[in-house]
Amino acid sequence: MDIKQLITQMTLEEKAKFCSGADFWHVEGLERLGIPSVMVTDGPCGLRKQAGETDHLGLNASVKAISYPTGSCVACSFDRELLRESGEYLGDECQAEDVAVLLGPAVNIKRSPLCGRNFEYFSEDPYLAGELSAAYISGVQSKNVGTSLKHFAANSQEHRRMTSSSQVDERTLREIYLPAFEKSVKQAKPWTVMCSYNRLNGEYASESHRLLTEILRDEWGFEGAVMSDWGAVNDRVKGVPAGMDLEMPGPGNGNTKKLIAAVKAGEMKESDLDAAVERILAFVFKYIENRKPDTKFDYEGHHEKARQMAAESMVLLKNDGILPLKKEDKVAFIGKFASEPRFQGGGSSHVNSYKVSGSVEAAKEYGVTYAQGYDTKTQEPDDELISQAVKTAREAQAAVVFIGITDAMESEGFDRADMKIPACQEKLLREVVKAQPNTVVVVECGSAIEMPWIDEVRGVLYAYLGGESVGPAVVDLLYGRANPCGKLAETFPLRLEDNPSYLYYLGEGDRTEYREGIFVGYRYYDKKDMPVLFPFGHGLSYTQYEYSDLTLDKTSMKDTDTLTVTVKVKNVGDRAGKEIVQLYVSDDQSTAIRPVKELKGFDKVELAPGQEKTVAFTLDKRAFAYYNVDINDWHVETGSFTVMIGRSSRDIQLCAKVEVESTQQIKRTYSFNSTIGDIMADPKGAQMVGQMMQAMNPMQEAEESDANPMGAEAMQAMMQYMPLRGIIMFAGGAPEVAAGLQQLIDALNAQ
Amino acid sequence: MDIKQLITQMTLEEKAKFCSGADFWHVEGLERLGIPSVMVTDGPCGLRKQAGETDHLGLNASVKAISYPTGSCVACSFDRELLRESGEYLGDECQAEDVAVLLGPAVNIKRSPLCGRNFEYFSEDPYLAGELSAAYISGVQSKNVGTSLKHFAANSQEHRRMTSSSQVDERTLREIYLPAFEKSVKQAKPWTVMCSYNRLNGEYASESHRLLTEILRDEWGFEGAVMSDWGAVNDRVKGVPAGMDLEMPGPGNGNTKKLIAAVKAGEMKESDLDAAVERILAFVFKYIENRKPDTKFDYEGHHEKARQMAAESMVLLKNDGILPLKKEDKVAFIGKFASEPRFQGGGSSHVNSYKVSGSVEAAKEYGVTYAQGYDTKTQEPDDELISQAVKTAREAQAAVVFIGITDAMESEGFDRADMKIPACQEKLLREVVKAQPNTVVVVECGSAIEMPWIDEVRGVLYAYLGGESVGPAVVDLLYGRANPCGKLAETFPLRLEDNPSYLYYLGEGDRTEYREGIFVGYRYYDKKDMPVLFPFGHGLSYTQYEYSDLTLDKTSMKDTDTLTVTVKVKNVGDRAGKEIVQLYVSDDQSTAIRPVKELKGFDKVELAPGQEKTVAFTLDKRAFAYYNVDINDWHVETGSFTVMIGRSSRDIQLCAKVEVESTQQIKRTYSFNSTIGDIMADPKGAQMVGQMMQAMNPMQEAEESDANPMGAEAMQAMMQYMPLRGIIMFAGGAPEVAAGLQQLIDALNAQ
Repeated sequence: MDIKQLITQMTLEEKAKFCSGADFWHVEGLERLGIPSVMVTDGPCGLRKQAGETDHLGLNASVKAISYPTGSCVACSFDRELLRESGEYLGDECQAEDVAVLLGPAVNIKRSPLCGRNFEYFSEDPYLAGELSAAYISGVQSKNVGTSLKHFAANSQEHRRMTSSSQVDERTLREIYLPAFEKSVKQAKPWTVMCSYNRLNGEYASESHRLLTEILRDEWGFEGAVMSDWGAVNDRVKGVPAGMDLEMPGPGNGNTKKLIAAVKAGEMKESDLDAAVERILAFVFKYIENRKPDTKFDYEGHHEKARQMAAESMVLLKNDGILPLKKEDKVAFIGKFASEPRFQGGGSSHVNSYKVSGSVEAAKEYGVTYAQGYDTKTQEPDDELISQAVKTAREAQAAVVFIGITDAMESEGFDRADMKIPACQEKLLREVVKAQPNTVVVVECGSAIEMPWIDEVRGVLYAYLGGESVGPAVVDLLYGRANPCGKLAETFPLRLEDNPSYLYYLGEGDRTEYREGIFVGYRYYDKKDMPVLFPFGHGLSYTQYEYSDLTLDKTSMKDTDTLTVTVKVKNVGDRAGKEIVQLYVSDDQSTAIRPVKELKGFDKVELAPGQEKTVAFTLDKRAFAYYNVDINDWHVETGSFTVMIGRSSRDIQLCAKVEVESTQQIKRTYSFNSTIGDIMADPKGAQMVGQMMQAMNPMQEAEESDANPMGAEAMQAMMQYMPLRGIIMFAGGAPEVAAGLQQLIDALNAQ
Repeated sequence: MDIKQLITQMTLEEKAKFCSGADFWHVEGLERLGIPSVMVTDGPCGLRKQAGETDHLGLNASVKAISYPTGSCVACSFDRELLRESGEYLGDECQAEDVAVLLGPAVNIKRSPLCGRNFEYFSEDPYLAGELSAAYISGVQSKNVGTSLKHFAANSQEHRRMTSSSQVDERTLREIYLPAFEKSVKQAKPWTVMCSYNRLNGEYASESHRLLTEILRDEWGFEGAVMSDWGAVNDRVKGVPAGMDLEMPGPGNGNTKKLIAAVKAGEMKESDLDAAVERILAFVFKYIENRKPDTKFDYEGHHEKARQMAAESMVLLKNDGILPLKKEDKVAFIGKFASEPRFQGGGSSHVNSYKVSGSVEAAKEYGVTYAQGYDTKTQEPDDELISQAVKTAREAQAAVVFIGITDAMESEGFDRADMKIPACQEKLLREVVKAQPNTVVVVECGSAIEMPWIDEVRGVLYAYLGGESVGPAVVDLLYGRANPCGKLAETFPLRLEDNPSYLYYLGEGDRTEYREGIFVGYRYYDKKDMPVLFPFGHGLSYTQYEYSDLTLDKTSMKDTDTLTVTVKVKNVGDRAGKEIVQLYVSDDQSTAIRPVKELKGFDKVELAPGQEKTVAFTLDKRAFAYYNVDINDWHVETGSFTVMIGRSSRDIQLCAKVEVESTQQIKRTYSFNSTIGDIMADPKGAQMVGQMMQAMNPMQEAEESDANPMGAEAMQAMMQYMPLRGIIMFAGGAPEVAAGLQQLIDALNAQ
């Protein structure tokens, strides 16, 4: 299809109309020109395709679809291949349902455990989020269905999300909140990107030329269309030239008229409209022209895939040997979530699930007993339910207590008030462990919780929101039919107050300051050397792995080189399993304030008992760089770096050093406010200053004098921190000293 | 003296010359017009008056003078009267030495325990710092000697202090870094203020019109002169119109010429020069015309005063009953600081002390034994010194180990690297406690240290830098000749990493971001609910006090009213003592992010055994207000406040509530981006919206629908957070809805 040619046949009115959806879920079509109206649909972890007529709010019942584990769950798989595969499954479902664009993945950073939408998001770590997102996008798009990478950008709270401004400094944006988008765009080329509701540093994402054009397109090379989150448009006429192509939902009505008027009044270029329509039509026709209308999918097979994904993702947080459960033991499953699991979150990602399998049902063959224990509609403990549960637990050889956050507490649209489980669940758990020392906890919720009872239980399996097949997956892991291999994609702090954003989360009015800056997640807990409940990257297995032979292919390199890192991992236990090998990089010394270490590589490797494999990583400049706001670029400071291989962010097994040399010449500008220390750090400066030290003689004499109230250390510091103008002062304002310094400055700046 | 008239007789050159000092320590004089050259001198805790000729650097030996306890020490007295008296003593010394202005007090906020100059500063709390500063200024100036309130402003690190920019948001500036200056200026009217070296949000303090004129003079009513910290001038021609009257040191030479040239070129008004000279001459003549040339002071009496000040300030941090020591017991004093105390800091405040009294000497009458234990010139443990010390300790019935930070580790000019004591001292202490379970520690240093050994010792007396009479003061307290009555003016964190500024302290290059904002000191530890080593306001006594009958004179008030709070304090022990009663205020609920509580009153009350007194506090608007940057003013949010009376910030004894009603009408402006929740919070808005809810009907229907993927909580949040423009979208862009909302907005804005 020659889209440019097509656009020349469209009237101004038709083009303006095309820049908003046709309704809640459809892009405009134009029969006259043979442009069909295609459908977009939530996403990201299953199809929420509205059934029948679309209504004003898009809230009508959706078709039955597979509910896969949510983002926070699958992220713990650390498995690019799994994410890619899940995308392929979803892509097939889209083709079968005639959906052109699936609205996902959601790669926002978990700034606070309270964010209501954390269950959809992957991680606190941008590298992990970006890698998984790119794999998911590749998977969906391999089926000729588009994705919509969302929510661009810095949309890490639900509180006042449609008006709030995220106040984020440039370096933090580049190092924390943008890289998952950047990686996805550069590597997987999503058909669309969805701009977020919020403002960024005061400007609505939906009208930010800087975000949508300068960064997304000019810097990262994005070639697709930007659509708005549903209702994210504020000023449509600002949005189109900023690069916000498609307003959703539609019809735009008022906005369409405004666009037309703006073009007519010369306030907006028609070519901006053309560009937007061209980008919209590009994905419409990409879908239409590569349509696979005959795609059918096997619900049962996909339901089974959801189970496998869940089992590969859930995290065994604690196990003192009680797990896996023994088939022959009499086990009590306690808690309503055991029979009616919590497996997905509320809001746009909520799927009308094909079929939901709970744990009690899935464990039928093991003859588990069951007691409800609590009601999900209330926080209040129900003494009768609890005493029944205690009795059931006592009569068994082990108890598995299913707890979690309820739908009412965790959803898109609002943030959680705390990190606690309902009081009724905590009371149940405490009563059960009193009666049954062999107690394991299964947690079903979308984000981190506090576990003040952690020392009282023998095992914890974190199921997250595991999708509709959660029950069988949990039972697979509890009974060892599957070997746990997920690791946490977020830090579990001991208490909410420990979280780096705690002081300023939610902000004041419509302004939220990201004051913790780059110190999000483990970057904060590590830097502050704080104890945590479970560190980022933590997860247990029923087997054990040993690491050896960390090798770097060079000991020194330029920042334009790549470094190959290999390490051997061996399964030294007696079960097959998969280990997630994590690579962190640390700048040994830096003038920039940097995290202790950052994740720069990971791989998941499957190992039979006794088997050993070599895992290889390739590190490039970005693995060593920080974002230098003075040069607006990534920058590696010449020096020594440590490459660490860990089982988790707090369980580093092997380290090796590499010297990296910067190839970037950073131009320094000297002035009378340059300090003597800074001048001396410059080779030429050091040489020239030697000749000028006469002016400082009095200081040196004073340094040696007993009367000097300054110690030697203070004098040294004073010299080092003194700006050149200070020399003039101490020289009594002598003009020849000033002139000499000016020459020094000029000579250094001329370098 | 008619200064204005005098100025009319001065040439442009003479006036320009007057705007810099005559030399390192003198203001210009002008014989022709009978203007004498007066001297200024450091400050703040004793005179450092240079003897004989002043040299280029002002580092020649100074005259003998009394070294009083430093700011960090006397702040722990929480005693306005003591501070006032110390000022009177210093004022007499200035008159005797013909010093016109004493360069102090130093009221910068202790942002980090690492700041090299913390020993000169009062507190992490601006209210406490301001109250003590005002008292000190009143004392000095009552002797017709000026003070120089310093360092204005936001100068909380020594690292790169002459070029670094403190990046501080407006609210933090107003609530944390400025109030001590504000209180001092408004209440005590210092003759001069000293601007700091650093830049504030990019602008040098020495050329900040906003700081030196708009805030200091226009807002606070300062009528004195501003002088620069020594070498703080960057661009002199910018400085004079900004309000920076007197450059120090002088002579200005180059700068004087620049001022003349600027006036001649019309780049600066001559009237700006006139204003600066007028303010300089004002304090010169205030001193000259009220000169008390016959003042003599009694060195021994002042030495004794220094002892009393120290004893009233030092803080008994821990005492399990071992203190006071018994006269009859054989006690070993261990550690070099016992015989050669550390009692003052290095740098401009360093006094050529009249006579220094150590603890060993002061405890002669008790027959203490002594072992050196460590060398102050090295960190390295000396095994021989340690084994001698262990032997000495073992042979006694109790040991007092004197430890602290050495001169080389803590000084003006550079920041500490950590909060640790030298390794040799820690090793000594650990060896001594093994040999002698009855071990007490005396700490001599200017700021907080970590105490990983705290559980191993029976008592800790924090002497800070106690001035030249430190020895007798320590012995007075150890043996109970004086009853400890100091309390901490700063929080002692468990570890450096716990400090709120830890992540960003020192900054990068010449930029330091105060990202913790208002959460400095206990404001942070309380909000994050963190354990600390010793909380702000903590200090023990040899007697006990009981609190009762907290009474507020009203239960509700307007923010223009004052509240009188009374509380009874009784000495229920068997010794006379002084208790520091602390009053904190907490806003029970606020839309602003606020500290858990803030110090808003304190009093020190002397009580004989069995005696009870009523302490009264008066609270005005500022006690309840936060600085609202939207209205650029202090603002009390209508609602309930808790008034707390505490022994320390973490030992609250009594609480009472008061309702405070704001008299400030804050004009709100509504727009299409106002949320429905915000509109509903406005009474008129709520009424009008009722009529418009038809447009929202689909949402309400959806809310009741089972198919709705949003739970009730999410729907409610979505409604509340939705901006008015969202209603238009959900109404399908209907123009009549938009028009109706515009009417609503107009009506609300017209209120």
